[in-house]
Amino acid sequence: MPTRRPRVGIVMGSDSDLEVLRETIRVLDDLDIPHEVVVASAHRTPEQTRRYATRAERRGIRVLIAGAGGAAALPGFLASLTSLPIIGVPINSSPLSGLDALLSMAQMPKGVPVATVAVGKWGAANAGILAAQILALSDANVGKRLAAFRRALAAEVQQRSRRVAAQLKKRQ
Amino acid sequence: MPTRRPRVGIVMGSDSDLEVLRETIRVLDDLDIPHEVVVASAHRTPEQTRRYATRAERRGIRVLIAGAGGAAALPGFLASLTSLPIIGVPINSSPLSGLDALLSMAQMPKGVPVATVAVGKWGAANAGILAAQILALSDANVGKRLAAFRRALAAEVQQRSRRVAAQLKKRQ
Amino acid sequence: MPTRRPRVGIVMGSDSDLEVLRETIRVLDDLDIPHEVVVASAHRTPEQTRRYATRAERRGIRVLIAGAGGAAALPGFLASLTSLPIIGVPINSSPLSGLDALLSMAQMPKGVPVATVAVGKWGAANAGILAAQILALSDANVGKRLAAFRRALAAEVQQRSRRVAAQLKKRQ
Amino acid sequence: MPTRRPRVGIVMGSDSDLEVLRETIRVLDDLDIPHEVVVASAHRTPEQTRRYATRAERRGIRVLIAGAGGAAALPGFLASLTSLPIIGVPINSSPLSGLDALLSMAQMPKGVPVATVAVGKWGAANAGILAAQILALSDANVGKRLAAFRRALAAEVQQRSRRVAAQLKKRQ
Amino acid sequence: MPTRRPRVGIVMGSDSDLEVLRETIRVLDDLDIPHEVVVASAHRTPEQTRRYATRAERRGIRVLIAGAGGAAALPGFLASLTSLPIIGVPINSSPLSGLDALLSMAQMPKGVPVATVAVGKWGAANAGILAAQILALSDANVGKRLAAFRRALAAEVQQRSRRVAAQLKKRQ
Amino acid sequence: MPTRRPRVGIVMGSDSDLEVLRETIRVLDDLDIPHEVVVASAHRTPEQTRRYATRAERRGIRVLIAGAGGAAALPGFLASLTSLPIIGVPINSSPLSGLDALLSMAQMPKGVPVATVAVGKWGAANAGILAAQILALSDANVGKRLAAFRRALAAEVQQRSRRVAAQLKKRQ
Amino acid sequence: MPTRRPRVGIVMGSDSDLEVLRETIRVLDDLDIPHEVVVASAHRTPEQTRRYATRAERRGIRVLIAGAGGAAALPGFLASLTSLPIIGVPINSSPLSGLDALLSMAQMPKGVPVATVAVGKWGAANAGILAAQILALSDANVGKRLAAFRRALAAEVQQRSRRVAAQLKKRQ
Amino acid sequence: MPTRRPRVGIVMGSDSDLEVLRETIRVLDDLDIPHEVVVASAHRTPEQTRRYATRAERRGIRVLIAGAGGAAALPGFLASLTSLPIIGVPINSSPLSGLDALLSMAQMPKGVPVATVAVGKWGAANAGILAAQILALSDANVGKRLAAFRRALAAEVQQRSRRVAAQLKKRQ
Repeated sequence: MPTRRPRVGIVMGSDSDLEVLRETIRVLDDLDIPHEVVVASAHRTPEQTRRYATRAERRGIRVLIAGAGGAAALPGFLASLTSLPIIGVPINSSPLSGLDALLSMAQMPKGVPVATVAVGKWGAANAGILAAQILALSDANVGKRLAAFRRALAAEVQQRSRRVAAQLKKRQ
Repeated sequence: MPTRRPRVGIVMGSDSDLEVLRETIRVLDDLDIPHEVVVASAHRTPEQTRRYATRAERRGIRVLIAGAGGAAALPGFLASLTSLPIIGVPINSSPLSGLDALLSMAQMPKGVPVATVAVGKWGAANAGILAAQILALSDANVGKRLAAFRRALAAEVQQRSRRVAAQLKKRQ
Repeated sequence: MPTRRPRVGIVMGSDSDLEVLRETIRVLDDLDIPHEVVVASAHRTPEQTRRYATRAERRGIRVLIAGAGGAAALPGFLASLTSLPIIGVPINSSPLSGLDALLSMAQMPKGVPVATVAVGKWGAANAGILAAQILALSDANVGKRLAAFRRALAAEVQQRSRRVAAQLKKRQ
Repeated sequence: MPTRRPRVGIVMGSDSDLEVLRETIRVLDDLDIPHEVVVASAHRTPEQTRRYATRAERRGIRVLIAGAGGAAALPGFLASLTSLPIIGVPINSSPLSGLDALLSMAQMPKGVPVATVAVGKWGAANAGILAAQILALSDANVGKRLAAFRRALAAEVQQRSRRVAAQLKKRQ
Repeated sequence: MPTRRPRVGIVMGSDSDLEVLRETIRVLDDLDIPHEVVVASAHRTPEQTRRYATRAERRGIRVLIAGAGGAAALPGFLASLTSLPIIGVPINSSPLSGLDALLSMAQMPKGVPVATVAVGKWGAANAGILAAQILALSDANVGKRLAAFRRALAAEVQQRSRRVAAQLKKRQ
Repeated sequence: MPTRRPRVGIVMGSDSDLEVLRETIRVLDDLDIPHEVVVASAHRTPEQTRRYATRAERRGIRVLIAGAGGAAALPGFLASLTSLPIIGVPINSSPLSGLDALLSMAQMPKGVPVATVAVGKWGAANAGILAAQILALSDANVGKRLAAFRRALAAEVQQRSRRVAAQLKKRQ
Repeated sequence: MPTRRPRVGIVMGSDSDLEVLRETIRVLDDLDIPHEVVVASAHRTPEQTRRYATRAERRGIRVLIAGAGGAAALPGFLASLTSLPIIGVPINSSPLSGLDALLSMAQMPKGVPVATVAVGKWGAANAGILAAQILALSDANVGKRLAAFRRALAAEVQQRSRRVAAQLKKRQ
Repeated sequence: MPTRRPRVGIVMGSDSDLEVLRETIRVLDDLDIPHEVVVASAHRTPEQTRRYATRAERRGIRVLIAGAGGAAALPGFLASLTSLPIIGVPINSSPLSGLDALLSMAQMPKGVPVATVAVGKWGAANAGILAAQILALSDANVGKRLAAFRRALAAEVQQRSRRVAAQLKKRQ
């Protein structure tokens, strides 16, 4: 992790969620946004998680990203303890394919929002981008890198279109 | 509430859940089990809820019953803070009919169980009975009242069978 | 709407969504955050919606909130056109109770996040709060009003707890 | 692709959808219907996709087929930009098995229909057949080839019935 | 119904589906497309339905629209008997809110497509529009009326936007 | 109930299920099949239910129809105790709209089938018809009445078709 | 297949369903019930399927078992053409895991029941047993073999209980 | 199994459920709680299961844990026969991923609660912990071991957090 002070905290309930959340780390690395990664469970280490959440703002964290599966209480737990924006990544680690985690994050009661993204790797990448969009509101450099990132994504789609066309032509 | 020391704590995230949880209160009243009712939200008043949960055992509470709708984190939150058995009642207060609350309670991760019952009033009544079953393991009087309660339920089914038969005969 | 320049744009695909999104307006009014309301459909008026989205940032909008039901493409459509953070409110206006809108918003592909909140009124209120949390990162006054708003919510839960207790005592 | 002017445009949001949409290509090849394949994303390359959609009719395209997974906005996006009939193929590329894509396509609001077919390969093949049925209304040759295609399908079912019978007899 | 030869056949499994399918009739009336309405059940009057389907093409019908609820076999049944394009409208007449009808229509096997639209009234209106889009491929007049219809829909969205803005201003 | 020996036993877990199961009674009355109605709960009166199930065959019962909601164990419980065919009617009495009852009946393990029909009134009527189809295999009179019943259903569909046509004409 | 006249017809929409329906064949073989297997599709070979269904009763068939996946119309199609009892086996051959097939079979409209069993192999085996239960009503020999079959199943459960106990003991 | 009198009975409907329920056994072994394991099916060996349930309390069993898949009637069946607390573990052994088992257990009718935990291995482990929480109410030694078990779980989370941090550092 960069030595600069982290701006985004990535919290996961279990280290088995790391495989999915690597997508978040990759995006934040690509956008050169300093971040930190913490394993902290709403249910198994509530006290440490509480301490982490209540101190995050003072430590310079601006956005928290929390990934969890099943009764995925972690992002809502953080949201109850800090006014920082919380992004929730539902993880498909239970037999119910992540529908449980999606509902457990999205259906938060009035007063305590969680910004929920897609189940699994798509969502993990998008959590990083959403954090960047939020940071870009007060940091023009992040905004520039984000714009470049989006142009690269679009260029990739166009390149793939050409590759598909070439591939289909060859087949004839 | 009875002046005897409460043995069961009923916790709800919102007073709008009271309509459903009245079924729990009714069952505990019928079984003469002293209880208390608290409105405390995992998400909106985490600190008070935490205090309630961590002191419950010392105050003589033996079982906690928590009702909540949507991303129903309340019973899991209590479960992370005390070793008392926690019973969760999913409440159908969101447009998703309680499926969200059911999954948010049942799908708890390893280490922190919530004893989940049915969505809505059936579950609320059953939460009271399950609490009584647990208390009956160390209190023979509760066991006797519970046995009587179950005999009454069975008698009611039989009486209804006769009433249905009579009603259908008349119709002829 | 206040004469100050709006910071939050609330976009709805149909005026029938206004009933739900009034919760968003109420929260933003309470937090004294200037906002504007637009009816614009991803599917029926794509050109106007596109114009609105691509100009929003220049006009000083910092966060867009989009409510829609069914195949709720509106927030994703906005997200494809601007780098502003987009909050999606799934609305339960189809016979499928909003599950369709929830999946259509949350399951966005890599590159284009939508910050999805709960189906219906809970989500509409939370969209306003989430927007405030984001704005508070660069506006300390919003942060103070938000903190007060959350304390008020917590106080309300405690007051309701007392009311429930009183109500149950009377019943005895 | 044939040098004749394409009549059907197959659009996919990501080249990873090609595996499923090959079924569409195969059917259109079998029915000798000229077609083209484009990778264009509603969310990542909205401007290119818009250009493609708004020019398709003038270029002689009669039917558009769009495959997408997750919050599968692509067919609805095309439908908002052209009056050509749009066929949507939900693709099971997210952990939610394509239910998300199915609802995101089928539940379109009044005014902008998407002709949705089955999730995955069945749907991809049927999209080609449905396009042929539409073209056959004004092209008797397509109609003849389609009738032959359907007779072949029926013959295949009968042949398989005999094969199953033979296989089961041998087993005795 | 107009005395001109009908081009679209609307088939419903039960007259209780008429309430929903009136939306289809209204759209076709608005677009001045001659149509006919038939109550015919795949399950209760298979022989009559078969006769209707197999003769439809010869009688000048170009598109069939079938509405049904529950195990909504009607559109698939028609699709097995004619090569005309079939549009299916899932109707929410069972306790499962139309999810059963949606899956029973969309998930057709390879070879026999049903163009499935949204559950209920949205889908019923869209079925009429989709039929018009298909007819417009070989009838420029339908195309013109359809373009006008879409402009009217867009104008309505804009008018509603102004009405919402006015309404919200008054409230202040 | 007729004085002839009942051939079909209708069992319900709660008298609140009678509203739905009246459809079954009506069909059996129409087909003149002697039947009896019993309120017996798998969960609340297991002993009485067991006695009823194990004696049914000897008493001349040929088919059992069981309606239940929620964790609808009743038909499976009967199926474990007798070799008579058991028909299960899922009842939508819980907030989950009968999906719970449908899965609890249909998903029986190997060895103990339950013939599951539709949720609610459609299923209740069909349970009566299915029972008649089974009885008709060894009772030609039931077969004749059943054939007449089906002809009447078909005639009703045709009559409704005419009524719809007339109604739509008048409207013009 | 035995040379005796078949009493049960097993119909499948595709030979790929044979893998699941082998369970049905195995059970009928074990119970020595003569049967036949036919590949016939409601959607792809409706005419042949119709002929099969309408002649089945005259040919001595007493029960029809139909397996299908997706929009599994086959059993309902048969049910619309004959008064024989129809048993439906939902097959999990689409990406939606058989939920589509289950709803497409169970949710039949009033008048045309399908006796639906579990998704996949459990259901396939149970279809055979249910057919035997129906045949046993008029064939005491089938009844005897069925009783033996069920005793064998129970004995197997007990033997497995002992094996599990032994296995767990060894582990110590 | 220990020679001390078992306090917890683990019942499974099929020995194929053992793989999941080993998690329960492991937890009870870790907490040194004497237990026994029985294969007994609600549907295939109802009489033996009934005998087991009705004698369990007299034999010193305090809590029953039942795992089952599909129409998972086993825990409800036990609950109808004894007043001991019953914990249900839904097992994902059918193609519907355990949603069927979850609903079949959680949605119990008023009067007969089942304490339902998560689908699969998480739930199996939690069933053991919940049983320990119940036993701890009257056995301080179990309470002490349970507290140690929870501290170990929390320590493991913290250790994993350090391991993840180390792993991510190395990657740089």
